[in-house]
Amino acid sequence: MKTKISGFPEFLPNEQIVFNTIKDSIKEHFESYGFIPMDTPAVERIETLLSKGNDSEIYGIYRLADNNSKKSLGLRFDLTVPFARYVASYYGEMTFPHKRYQIAPVWRGERPQFGRYRQFYQCDMDVIGEESLSFAYDAEIIKLLTEILQDLKAPDFTTYINNRKILSGFLKQIIGEKDVDDKIIECMRLIDKMDKISVDEFWKSISNFGISDENATKLKSFLEVDKRGSNEVILRTLKPLNFNEEYNTGINELEEVISLLKKVGLEDSYVKISTKLARGLSYYTSTVFETVFNDLKNVGSIGGGGRYDDLTSKISADKKFVGVGASIGISRLIPKLIERGIIKCEKSSTAQLLVTVQNRKFLSTYMKLSNSFRRLGIKTETYLQDKPLGSQIGYASKKGIKYVLIANEVELLDNKAIIRNLETREQSVIRTKFMGAEVLSLFR
Amino acid sequence: MKTKISGFPEFLPNEQIVFNTIKDSIKEHFESYGFIPMDTPAVERIETLLSKGNDSEIYGIYRLADNNSKKSLGLRFDLTVPFARYVASYYGEMTFPHKRYQIAPVWRGERPQFGRYRQFYQCDMDVIGEESLSFAYDAEIIKLLTEILQDLKAPDFTTYINNRKILSGFLKQIIGEKDVDDKIIECMRLIDKMDKISVDEFWKSISNFGISDENATKLKSFLEVDKRGSNEVILRTLKPLNFNEEYNTGINELEEVISLLKKVGLEDSYVKISTKLARGLSYYTSTVFETVFNDLKNVGSIGGGGRYDDLTSKISADKKFVGVGASIGISRLIPKLIERGIIKCEKSSTAQLLVTVQNRKFLSTYMKLSNSFRRLGIKTETYLQDKPLGSQIGYASKKGIKYVLIANEVELLDNKAIIRNLETREQSVIRTKFMGAEVLSLFR
Repeated sequence: MKTKISGFPEFLPNEQIVFNTIKDSIKEHFESYGFIPMDTPAVERIETLLSKGNDSEIYGIYRLADNNSKKSLGLRFDLTVPFARYVASYYGEMTFPHKRYQIAPVWRGERPQFGRYRQFYQCDMDVIGEESLSFAYDAEIIKLLTEILQDLKAPDFTTYINNRKILSGFLKQIIGEKDVDDKIIECMRLIDKMDKISVDEFWKSISNFGISDENATKLKSFLEVDKRGSNEVILRTLKPLNFNEEYNTGINELEEVISLLKKVGLEDSYVKISTKLARGLSYYTSTVFETVFNDLKNVGSIGGGGRYDDLTSKISADKKFVGVGASIGISRLIPKLIERGIIKCEKSSTAQLLVTVQNRKFLSTYMKLSNSFRRLGIKTETYLQDKPLGSQIGYASKKGIKYVLIANEVELLDNKAIIRNLETREQSVIRTKFMGAEVLSLFR
Repeated sequence: MKTKISGFPEFLPNEQIVFNTIKDSIKEHFESYGFIPMDTPAVERIETLLSKGNDSEIYGIYRLADNNSKKSLGLRFDLTVPFARYVASYYGEMTFPHKRYQIAPVWRGERPQFGRYRQFYQCDMDVIGEESLSFAYDAEIIKLLTEILQDLKAPDFTTYINNRKILSGFLKQIIGEKDVDDKIIECMRLIDKMDKISVDEFWKSISNFGISDENATKLKSFLEVDKRGSNEVILRTLKPLNFNEEYNTGINELEEVISLLKKVGLEDSYVKISTKLARGLSYYTSTVFETVFNDLKNVGSIGGGGRYDDLTSKISADKKFVGVGASIGISRLIPKLIERGIIKCEKSSTAQLLVTVQNRKFLSTYMKLSNSFRRLGIKTETYLQDKPLGSQIGYASKKGIKYVLIANEVELLDNKAIIRNLETREQSVIRTKFMGAEVLSLFR
């Protein structure tokens, strides 16, 4: 990966081919479950963006020629805000439940010195329903996320799962019901990040929330419940605590999702309850989950998501849309897999076959030959520069084009050609008239 | 198509599915010729953008939180400038000739009241060589452009072709060699647009270039040469005029491209010489071409391109890259084809089959069934909301999902299910164990 402008990475051709192949295969996964593509403009109204984002990370846009005019538009910083705005705009013309995916870049006004990406791809899938949505969709989304990562041959990973109502209900119990929302959310955010700071620092920060020593002990053991073993054991420990209604609802929802996950084949080895998981984004209201590599903890989250009770709450109030979604961080994940040699970038061409041109008098014959291969579904490049055969073959092997077609006047007039496999050096003579299955079999 | 922010159109789900299908099929065409994907960031340095663009159309970006800081980045307004910058950056790690395609949005700071798009997709293909590039690539690019438009079932169209050296050589002859470049380019631009203004207005503007009445008559007959008939006749008329070296080079180049086009099967009915064609972009230096519908002239250009002698001239001076490229205006073209009913948007789902759920006790069986269909390559949605069967089938037909699977306890326990074709109302009973070719045949 290369970077010409700090924060805006780009790929060399061989890496780009791999990145796009993966993007296409993820798209196939989404569509195999009936998710449909969505593609909103990169630009939204600043007021829409600010409803969920903060101004230090948002890029505004302006016409160079009128720098001083009133500015009202900016670039999206995620794909959820545009999704919410889209649903609020067109729900009357949509059929629910609506399953959408979007694989597209987003922009964040990071300070370049932090080494963070200022443009990166997000890869989102969501299902939304009117008023209500079955928890079976939570299980389906996690199953699909798992399938995609398995297909990527990603190293072993685990998806941690929780329900925000459990943590929130518990915290209300120990902090007090009156100190609602803001304080609770702040405390949840701190807990979510506890693995990134020292133990001392964590407990010092916790004390700022006015939690008594006794309650701190309770919190400690609550956050360690998930070390007790299987999801079943964890649920069996959590359930009788019966703190308050919110807590109990959270437990029941989580229990339902865990049972559905089992039904789609995701046992404990794939999905584990984590009582401290909250996810940073405050619009999640129920199920939350996050996927990490088992042995590469420093890579951080490679995917995650959750359920939200009211997608369009800050944009449009006349209807309620309940959804569940997940996102895969492909801009971070794929370069990591390339770096570690898990994904190889050996080709800098999409072509499988290079038709070399030895005799320019027959240019049209070579070009027509290429077309015959294309009709058979073989991606074929014709080498059209005026260079000796050796350079043409060198070009093919440099670009990772596996096969070359070699033919001079004698062969062409006899409707024959040689196909050489550059990896094995095997050669086959083919008949170029009425090419069919026997030619195709060479390319397997 | 819908527009929430003026100039930033977006599609409803059924249109988006069609747009993406077409984008994918264009990509397949590009790759079948060995073009490789390129994907540069949306953002470039403003100085790079200004090397070929003008500040009234370029969008700069700024972090909302520091509106008053120095601004140095902006959004690309085409895909050629980023391509040039990319090649100038990484040519040492690339193999030439390099064939790339890029299908991506660009942004233009148009005043919204003009009703123009401020974001639209460009769909570019280019081949570049070091120092030189065979004219056979010009023919290949035009051939590929033609194939793509044919595959789209676009109404009859013609590609007009010219060589800028011919027009420029001719104008130097009648305006004078001294009044080089700027004036000639301005005059070429006027000629290129002559069909868009009145005849009187055109000749009045021409007189501003200091062209004598005698020369104006010459120009008139020169611009009408292409009415004389076949490309062969036109070339035969133009060739002996022998105005100057530039003109003669242009004629020879055009002759070569026309002959190569014939070799790849593009006769006069596809490609026609137009002596007034120049294309607006000044970086074209040789071949230029433009594709228009024969009967829908008001749609304007649907594709076009040309050859440039020095891609990176304004960015990096140490190497010369010669290229030829074309662009298809899909953001304008596809909505036109939808509007005219040439392309139908009947589905708002990617799924071919909806597995209905009649008995939630068997949720996991239904979900596993869906997975079996997915493994056979059938895009399958499971209906997971708790609704009566009738609503579930209604959902499928509303979204254009052609098949539904219906099974209740009795069928499931017997490893059977019913597949109903919602278009023909035909039903088939299938065995759900070891599904294979016989099930697959239902979906054809």
